[in-house]
Amino acid sequence: MTKPLITPATLKGFRDYLPAPAMAREAIMEVARRVYRSYGFSPIDTPALEYTEVLLGKGGEESDKQLFRFTDNGGRDVALRFDLTVPFARFAAQHLNEIGVPFKRYHLAPVWRGENTQRGRYREFVQCDFDTIGTDSNAADIETLLVIHDLLSAIGFERFQIRVNNRLVLNGLLEKLGLADRSAGVLRALDKLHKIGRDGVLAELCERVQTTGEQADQVLDFAQLSGSPVEILNRLEEMLTGNATGELGVARLRELFQVATHAGIPPQRVELDVSIARGLDYYTGTIYETFLIDDPKIGSICSGGRYDNLAGLFTSQKLPGVGASLGLDRLLAAMETFGMIAQASTPAPVLVTQFDATRVDEYTRIGRLLRQAGLNTEVFPDARGVGKQLKYADKKGFRLAVIAGSDEFAAGVWQVKDLRAGSQSQVPESQLIDHIRTLLQSSS
Amino acid sequence: MTKPLITPATLKGFRDYLPAPAMAREAIMEVARRVYRSYGFSPIDTPALEYTEVLLGKGGEESDKQLFRFTDNGGRDVALRFDLTVPFARFAAQHLNEIGVPFKRYHLAPVWRGENTQRGRYREFVQCDFDTIGTDSNAADIETLLVIHDLLSAIGFERFQIRVNNRLVLNGLLEKLGLADRSAGVLRALDKLHKIGRDGVLAELCERVQTTGEQADQVLDFAQLSGSPVEILNRLEEMLTGNATGELGVARLRELFQVATHAGIPPQRVELDVSIARGLDYYTGTIYETFLIDDPKIGSICSGGRYDNLAGLFTSQKLPGVGASLGLDRLLAAMETFGMIAQASTPAPVLVTQFDATRVDEYTRIGRLLRQAGLNTEVFPDARGVGKQLKYADKKGFRLAVIAGSDEFAAGVWQVKDLRAGSQSQVPESQLIDHIRTLLQSSS
Repeated sequence: MTKPLITPATLKGFRDYLPAPAMAREAIMEVARRVYRSYGFSPIDTPALEYTEVLLGKGGEESDKQLFRFTDNGGRDVALRFDLTVPFARFAAQHLNEIGVPFKRYHLAPVWRGENTQRGRYREFVQCDFDTIGTDSNAADIETLLVIHDLLSAIGFERFQIRVNNRLVLNGLLEKLGLADRSAGVLRALDKLHKIGRDGVLAELCERVQTTGEQADQVLDFAQLSGSPVEILNRLEEMLTGNATGELGVARLRELFQVATHAGIPPQRVELDVSIARGLDYYTGTIYETFLIDDPKIGSICSGGRYDNLAGLFTSQKLPGVGASLGLDRLLAAMETFGMIAQASTPAPVLVTQFDATRVDEYTRIGRLLRQAGLNTEVFPDARGVGKQLKYADKKGFRLAVIAGSDEFAAGVWQVKDLRAGSQSQVPESQLIDHIRTLLQSSS
Repeated sequence: MTKPLITPATLKGFRDYLPAPAMAREAIMEVARRVYRSYGFSPIDTPALEYTEVLLGKGGEESDKQLFRFTDNGGRDVALRFDLTVPFARFAAQHLNEIGVPFKRYHLAPVWRGENTQRGRYREFVQCDFDTIGTDSNAADIETLLVIHDLLSAIGFERFQIRVNNRLVLNGLLEKLGLADRSAGVLRALDKLHKIGRDGVLAELCERVQTTGEQADQVLDFAQLSGSPVEILNRLEEMLTGNATGELGVARLRELFQVATHAGIPPQRVELDVSIARGLDYYTGTIYETFLIDDPKIGSICSGGRYDNLAGLFTSQKLPGVGASLGLDRLLAAMETFGMIAQASTPAPVLVTQFDATRVDEYTRIGRLLRQAGLNTEVFPDARGVGKQLKYADKKGFRLAVIAGSDEFAAGVWQVKDLRAGSQSQVPESQLIDHIRTLLQSSS
């Protein structure tokens, strides 16, 4: 009696990565690691599972409900991490003596959230975070901007815009207007500006946040400031004169724009947008959002900001910091739209076909020879018909097929078929590597 | 009232990776990806969580007990994967039409097992698997050997040995001796050869497996064959003449050794060891184990073999295959012993120190300039005393410090301090990149 087959299925809200998307995702993650490292960020890793008390209440009620939480075989209350920030806070507090400050880390790893899958989101996704902790210095804020810029640029984007703000300027204004205690309400109303327009926000500020009409007007004038960063900063300076919080915010933003330009960041890629207010309570200084000019609707693909204290729930040592996170899945979706993702499902451009099973020694040797020259090369495992092997090569997206049968072995030559151009040439082995390099360059 | 602090702790059996070990692990994983890709293996990924029925009973009773299993918020019986083979079987069955065969994949990902932590094992660890499925061809078995060889070699090992066997030769012998139905018992006894010696195994074969003394002698003569692969293969051929299974095993092994040598694998790195019998029932053909000559006690660091059918529990389509898995944690432990792991906890060799907070523009610019030349460079975020910054540089393992204050800015030069040699030099900016490259090469 044979057992009935088990239906092969992934859990609701989870997905497999087949080779083409897996290669695209790996490529972006490699670029992220390379850029983060180039700035001196070190990798760290933390366990997927944490004590539930480490995670609970750190991301709000919604986040608590979405936890994959259970009791392990040892009776411990455990849960899968829902982000990389909370584990980093726990990590920083636990290892503070070893790591010291300032401490710069990156962390690329999956997180899990039992989200409503109808929104097209997955319950497992990879986050790519980087942070500098243990310093208040604006140099770290500026560097965060540079990292975001160089990251997007290294991934292959040219038309993107990083929108920057600093929570201190709004805080300064609210202090000046006597609304400092109502900042959460003001931010919530401002967040709807794009949706409900100026009049809608005005009404909400007066009715729900109980501001005067004049206060609401000033808040909205502020939020709707536009122009070049220098123009906006000059206006802000006038509006905030005499308020230390606001002036500090303006000074930090001014230095950020000046230094970024000095370091070679194209000015059109960085905008000052005083309306962005990411992370209502969490972020306390500079804020970053990044949009693709040709696909703004996909939302911010790299966001972050400065915070006052990373690990206050775990240690009494204050750890201010600044960082951001690359939205890998959004980015992949955008890259798919733009045709930036290769359709090939093989990381090798060259396929050595096999015609004569008794010459596996030669096919194997030539494959290794090409690899040693830096050319990724697959050797087809079975001696099948040429048509079948070339069909396989086409389907997988190989660029070249290297072919030899008894005639070629007798003559000491290899046939090279360019699978896109359809052309075929014959070269002696001594010229094979150069010939393949030339073909790959010309058809790329 | 402030809340009491939460104790920052990892779960029992789990660990954080601090920068130095995290960098070492990333480096090995990058080499693994590079080598796997060079042979045309594509990455895939599968969810950490699977339906429990997918995982249950696939790794034996021990494995079932070690599952992190729970009921999710949707009432599903789910569990964290305990290896990458079972998810690959599910994946292959589910996506067979899309992926086609032959299919070559690699998968680098964490797995979870609630193991007894007293053995010094962790409950979360990364596996690095590669497999070729959908072919019986010996070319794939030979390639698996090449991949293992090139992987260890690319990681930086020179003194290692891959021990190869083929289950068919033992099966052939057992068929000839009329013991085919008792192979599990014979294997179990043979597995103890190193521990209890020839006499112990002889006794166990006669008493527990109920062989005759002559049968037991022949089995042991077989398992204790030694010499060069060709010598052993010639002896095996004599012993197995007339038995098709055994002859096929010998022929495949003969071709493997011949082709591997022809493809340039140093013969002393591959040994034929008929006593290894990894994966009692799972593996059905070629078997691989890899040992470090200078640390054999750490066990096999890369093991695998050929199997008849990957996904028989999920699909009626037969998927034979061959593959192996790199034991990342064992390898890291060995590399630590051999001093092969860098002590630096920064991926950047260069630290730009900061002395004058008003010149963040220049420090930031020079940092980006060096990065664009391919030199990983950290800019210290705060304008602190030189001693403090150099102490930071020492602790992290930076190689060079790039220093400038008002004098240097006025003269248009940079000071470069070699932190190992203790020497310091002054160069104009136009020579900075070349100077740094020279210093890094000379002290590496």
